[in-house]
Amino acid sequence: MSRFLHSKYESLTPYDTSGEVESMKGFIRLNTNESPFPPSPKVLAASYESSRGLNYYCDPECSQLAEKISSMFGLKPSQIVFGNGSDEILNFLFMGFCEKGAAFPSITYSFYKILAKFHDVDYIPVPLKKLKVDPSYYRNVKGRTIFIANPNSPTGIAMPLSEIEEIITSNPESLVVVDEAYVDFGAESAVKLIQEYGNVAVVRTFSKSRSLAGARLGWCMACEELSQDIRNIKNTLTPYNINAMTQAAGLAALEDEEYTRKNIDIIRMVRDNTRTRLQEMGFEVTESSTNFLFAKHKDISGEEIFNALKKYKIMVRHFTNPSAISDYNRITIGTPEQMQIFLEVLKGDIK
Amino acid sequence: MSRFLHSKYESLTPYDTSGEVESMKGFIRLNTNESPFPPSPKVLAASYESSRGLNYYCDPECSQLAEKISSMFGLKPSQIVFGNGSDEILNFLFMGFCEKGAAFPSITYSFYKILAKFHDVDYIPVPLKKLKVDPSYYRNVKGRTIFIANPNSPTGIAMPLSEIEEIITSNPESLVVVDEAYVDFGAESAVKLIQEYGNVAVVRTFSKSRSLAGARLGWCMACEELSQDIRNIKNTLTPYNINAMTQAAGLAALEDEEYTRKNIDIIRMVRDNTRTRLQEMGFEVTESSTNFLFAKHKDISGEEIFNALKKYKIMVRHFTNPSAISDYNRITIGTPEQMQIFLEVLKGDIK
Repeated sequence: MSRFLHSKYESLTPYDTSGEVESMKGFIRLNTNESPFPPSPKVLAASYESSRGLNYYCDPECSQLAEKISSMFGLKPSQIVFGNGSDEILNFLFMGFCEKGAAFPSITYSFYKILAKFHDVDYIPVPLKKLKVDPSYYRNVKGRTIFIANPNSPTGIAMPLSEIEEIITSNPESLVVVDEAYVDFGAESAVKLIQEYGNVAVVRTFSKSRSLAGARLGWCMACEELSQDIRNIKNTLTPYNINAMTQAAGLAALEDEEYTRKNIDIIRMVRDNTRTRLQEMGFEVTESSTNFLFAKHKDISGEEIFNALKKYKIMVRHFTNPSAISDYNRITIGTPEQMQIFLEVLKGDIK
Repeated sequence: MSRFLHSKYESLTPYDTSGEVESMKGFIRLNTNESPFPPSPKVLAASYESSRGLNYYCDPECSQLAEKISSMFGLKPSQIVFGNGSDEILNFLFMGFCEKGAAFPSITYSFYKILAKFHDVDYIPVPLKKLKVDPSYYRNVKGRTIFIANPNSPTGIAMPLSEIEEIITSNPESLVVVDEAYVDFGAESAVKLIQEYGNVAVVRTFSKSRSLAGARLGWCMACEELSQDIRNIKNTLTPYNINAMTQAAGLAALEDEEYTRKNIDIIRMVRDNTRTRLQEMGFEVTESSTNFLFAKHKDISGEEIFNALKKYKIMVRHFTNPSAISDYNRITIGTPEQMQIFLEVLKGDIK
């Protein structure tokens, strides 16, 4: 550590990207919940076209994207704020909207904890009930901002919208952030609750169903007051956060819904098929509404399975912490061909 | 304001991008110090190629870029940290390295003040001496982090390296950040001081000389300890901050030095010529080492000139604040053709 670093950042816990970096070296990447399908050809064409004008600053308001998304969801463009991935939106929310602390599931997207710690936000990890988020556990959070990934990661399990609404209505003093990174793979969105409640923000990303993880684009939807606050933070810290190519890529992706829809259908089909096959091999697999499966074997430890797959250049995600899930692996759904290889390797290893 | 916003952000002052947005509508943009030249064709090809793999996360370490830049400057790759524009690097520096406060020129890049306020950094504006940064004014900053834009904006004036070194050596308890956004247009870089002093960080951008303002790419160079601290903050908040297309664009831009060099030469030539013409028209123009001029007329107010140009769809940058510079306009150097129009409009207006 240099002597110039602020004392409050002496012991940072950066997000662990080592698995991602490693998996770049010729591995079958089933560890980061990316789409196995490249972006739509229309995305490639649009971002190329936009790159001709890169000498000019990009539109700080992402006007065309905001226009498009707001019309998709029946909102106003001013209700949409964009982030460099949904991670940046989450950063704004932990930074700017957690004065009374935060509450989120004890097992969920690990970035929440990292951001809470960074911003010195007092947070409570709320236990899951049989791996599910239980709304009744969120009744005494005392104005803390509640972060719910729906569907949740790494479990893959979705909550019905009625339960999200229960959390919102039973916590009128709390802002409820619904992180819908995986919603397109089978859960119901909370967007419709934005018109009704002033204490909900919905966070989305282009990284999963729209094949744009490497473009970094996420967005937030909320009532106008909340959106304006988030936008003010964005425009103070990083007014030009979304580069011109990514704005063009995002817009083109939204304009090619058919391509996205087709990919989602394949992923869901492969997911459900893979789940059945895993169950036949003696795995316990949660019911997934996402593009990944969360599975543990009845006899073999999660670590052992992780290492065996890695030997065959297949990366899945293994969590050593907390111990309640250390026998699970999170397996991103790849192409049908990749999943075939995955299942064969696994079969060879298990017997 | 929503009731959920943290009280410390009640009165934010976002960066004013209205001029930029307005100038997108068919104006000659001489207000944001962009390059008038599109990026190199090699940049377009490389970012297109990279877009095919956007379904995968981008390299969080920007390894290829770090490799390239470190070899250009005789540093190690680990000494380079990338930001979503140099603005993001500046954000990390104000956030993480200003526990004892900050000091920067009273007239400089306006973003410093915005970031200092946001992060509750106690800052002192250090007066200029005849529009120049004077090292002798930086002798009692008491460990504050010093931010020097060299060349400075909006004045365009560069300091000799010996004066930068004087600030570094006379403030061993301070981190000295040298913001070299415009250095390629004629100033001497402080990079060589990094090997010698542990209290200097150099910030650079691809937005100006490399025609990539809309791609958002900046970087920081410092000793390994400092770089590691900055990287830790980056990897905690936003591990994937540089999207894949921008990484490819940046690398290709660095590999086409000839293109950059040629554009810089044209800009410098047009700048010096425009300066002479302005002086002939009765303007006082500072000596610029950048891609812009800072000029005031002997009889006509800065505001009047700004408005007259705007009527003809030419945007320059006018600062109403502080009053010491309110009679100046900052004029980005455009193409030879654009500057011809600019000078003709001005001539017609002045007489």
